Amino acid sequence: MSRGADPGGRGGAGATRASAAAPRAGILVTGTEVLTGIISDRNGPWLSERLHDLGVDTATIQIVGDRPADLRAALHAMREAGMALIVTSGGLGPTADDLTAEVVGQFCGRQMVLDAALEARIGEILERLTARWPNLDPDAVRESNRKQALIPEGATILDPVGTAPGLVVPQAHGDGPTVVVLPGPPRELQAMWEAARATEAFSAAIAGATSYEREIVRLFGIPESEIASTLRVAEQEGLDLDPLEITTCLRRGEIEVATRFFPADRQAYDALLDLIRRRHPETLFSQDGSTIDDLLAGLLRGHTLAVAESCTAGGLASRLTDPPGASEYLLGGAVVYSNDAKADLAGVDPALIERHGAVSTEVAQALAHGIAERFGAELGIGITGIAGPGGGTAEKPVGLVCLSVWMRGEPPRTLTRRTRLPGGRADVRDRSVTVAMHMLRRVLLGESDAAA
Amino acid sequence: MSRGADPGGRGGAGATRASAAAPRAGILVTGTEVLTGIISDRNGPWLSERLHDLGVDTATIQIVGDRPADLRAALHAMREAGMALIVTSGGLGPTADDLTAEVVGQFCGRQMVLDAALEARIGEILERLTARWPNLDPDAVRESNRKQALIPEGATILDPVGTAPGLVVPQAHGDGPTVVVLPGPPRELQAMWEAARATEAFSAAIAGATSYEREIVRLFGIPESEIASTLRVAEQEGLDLDPLEITTCLRRGEIEVATRFFPADRQAYDALLDLIRRRHPETLFSQDGSTIDDLLAGLLRGHTLAVAESCTAGGLASRLTDPPGASEYLLGGAVVYSNDAKADLAGVDPALIERHGAVSTEVAQALAHGIAERFGAELGIGITGIAGPGGGTAEKPVGLVCLSVWMRGEPPRTLTRRTRLPGGRADVRDRSVTVAMHMLRRVLLGESDAAA
Repeated sequence: MSRGADPGGRGGAGATRASAAAPRAGILVTGTEVLTGIISDRNGPWLSERLHDLGVDTATIQIVGDRPADLRAALHAMREAGMALIVTSGGLGPTADDLTAEVVGQFCGRQMVLDAALEARIGEILERLTARWPNLDPDAVRESNRKQALIPEGATILDPVGTAPGLVVPQAHGDGPTVVVLPGPPRELQAMWEAARATEAFSAAIAGATSYEREIVRLFGIPESEIASTLRVAEQEGLDLDPLEITTCLRRGEIEVATRFFPADRQAYDALLDLIRRRHPETLFSQDGSTIDDLLAGLLRGHTLAVAESCTAGGLASRLTDPPGASEYLLGGAVVYSNDAKADLAGVDPALIERHGAVSTEVAQALAHGIAERFGAELGIGITGIAGPGGGTAEKPVGLVCLSVWMRGEPPRTLTRRTRLPGGRADVRDRSVTVAMHMLRRVLLGESDAAA
Repeated sequence: MSRGADPGGRGGAGATRASAAAPRAGILVTGTEVLTGIISDRNGPWLSERLHDLGVDTATIQIVGDRPADLRAALHAMREAGMALIVTSGGLGPTADDLTAEVVGQFCGRQMVLDAALEARIGEILERLTARWPNLDPDAVRESNRKQALIPEGATILDPVGTAPGLVVPQAHGDGPTVVVLPGPPRELQAMWEAARATEAFSAAIAGATSYEREIVRLFGIPESEIASTLRVAEQEGLDLDPLEITTCLRRGEIEVATRFFPADRQAYDALLDLIRRRHPETLFSQDGSTIDDLLAGLLRGHTLAVAESCTAGGLASRLTDPPGASEYLLGGAVVYSNDAKADLAGVDPALIERHGAVSTEVAQALAHGIAERFGAELGIGITGIAGPGGGTAEKPVGLVCLSVWMRGEPPRTLTRRTRLPGGRADVRDRSVTVAMHMLRRVLLGESDAAA
């Protein structure tokens, strides 16, 4: 769902604002493997968001294969459509079908020249890389990569992140779009973005754009429609939402509300944020864009934790240890699919499993407490559920998950939940991890069920 | 990297074939929420694969927002580029910014007319839908949806899956692309595809296309450049690669080689496959497109397994349990970050850690054997490494990972590796899991290091 003005001049609503018309940009993704669906494009959407933040209006994202004629036609159509900037991704590799630099050079009226310093730089990089593969012929590798040092004369070079350099290429003669040429691998493209943005040619191309501010808040535990209804209330209460571009979306069970506005309109945003705070005090967990992962990495410092997972089978431990330094607080965990493992590794009384079944709040509690004791940790988490597709019964259907958090103290804190999660096996497993993380946050903030 | 002929007439190489030139198609995805990256487009790649299998050459996928001028410009550019077929998705809803049908009608030289039968059909659908939302005004809903019964005169209607009908619209006058107009929600679009394909106008537009066959093989443990060199050898040995369209890509450390060809050219593919088999007997692990996950799910049936993970911290257990039914063979596992946990849960002798360090082949072996014993499993896997960004030393740098697989038997099989993986924390963790899965496959197929 997306609502509200688009201050960038996309619709009519923002037309009264200072910035009458934002510069337009086109994104051109190349690569037969992207075009044929073998790899799905992540660069187009990522670049689109970055450009939008800069106040640039992305008018199109186009994917073409490794065919110079198609690449050329797309560039020309974007020029026709009045783009001030074109950002390309891909086609910078060492093989013959990697043609972007050359086609862009032509498009901008520039000859290709060998940049000696760049060639040396790529040589160094390759030397390090080929060391890993002792059987390769380094000369052959270097030869095929010399191609990557051939650049349009007068282009600004962006230092390679992998082996391919990026380029910023303004038109040599007269008007027309400046082309930013970036490599295809998302990691390399993203790492190179700031350098591209910092070039003079880039700034000149988007001169006159007004950068947006962007704020993100996150909520957990309500449906998306509740946010829609809050926005209706906002209008009834007379809040001025016109200068705000508000987008809500559901991500892994959490609601993300992203709002873009011009710096002068911060007051309108603050009023909206205040309303969200008042209407959703329980479910609003992040007001500055932090994810639950970020928040936990902060909250867990100085504590120790162990996890016992059945249906998520390592998914929680793995996600908790994504951030660097997680080994400071996560002592470890156990994947306890079988009942024997629940008893042996997490000290769950087999009689308890017998009485309540492996998927029960009682066993989740015993797992949480047992794994904390086992590792001598301050906190323990237990998850047990039915991820499906098999194993469900009328009484305990697929999607039923029991979770518990235990925290040492006098008295200990505990939070235990029995929930029914929607979707297939992957959804249930993923969502269970998210629920556990939110429960852990609540316990760390002092919450506890009435009586342990 | 992509090479070879494109039997579809992309390059010159396939020109000698019976089917001189495949019809070209463009895919046009509309919607501001897709363009701004809020929703990622799934329709473009899906349609591209379907078209490719029909022998139609998708030359471009383009995303534009809900602006008629941009939509029109994209249609005209595709006509210029010689497309025989254009497939659009999105912009068929009831609101004012849903303009695809009208813009396409104009583009094809056709007037918009109200189709009474279609209006009645949409009316019925809406009656059912609005019953679920008692607060809606059904008249207002019906009014705003009458728009969806306005279609270009002479278009073929595709029955609605949601509320929006699809359309197949040939040019009214003279040459030019036929346009297939489909709704944006992937479920509706996919359900409507067969009906679109079955229309006379669709068949006429792609007359002369020959459907491809597609084969995929996967390799692990060599760089992508080795495949490039095998393709060079193929040509030196006189193999006819011209009729093959070969695309190689790197996915999570594995190399995927996808080849498309006309049925008549299977012999050329078989010769290539034979060469790959001969040159890469050790690293070719899948000849039928199966992933390592698929293969292990098959190979592990009838066995039992337990895992002890340090740096991957549950990532291996989690990935092994993605497929349904994994609880049959994975008994469980332990996340053993701390040395205490390595000793307590996986039975590693603390003196061994003292002597060799926690990241060592010796400790990996002890983890593999110890966790198998602990769970009474037939197979055990141990992973210990330095995922970074901190914790590296000159002797044991970030990216160093030691892995071991142990399998019960007389004598037991073991496979142990010490490897240095590239990239950041996430890459090292992800790649470690992949390496472990391939080692597990080798052991299940009978491989073992010389002496345990």
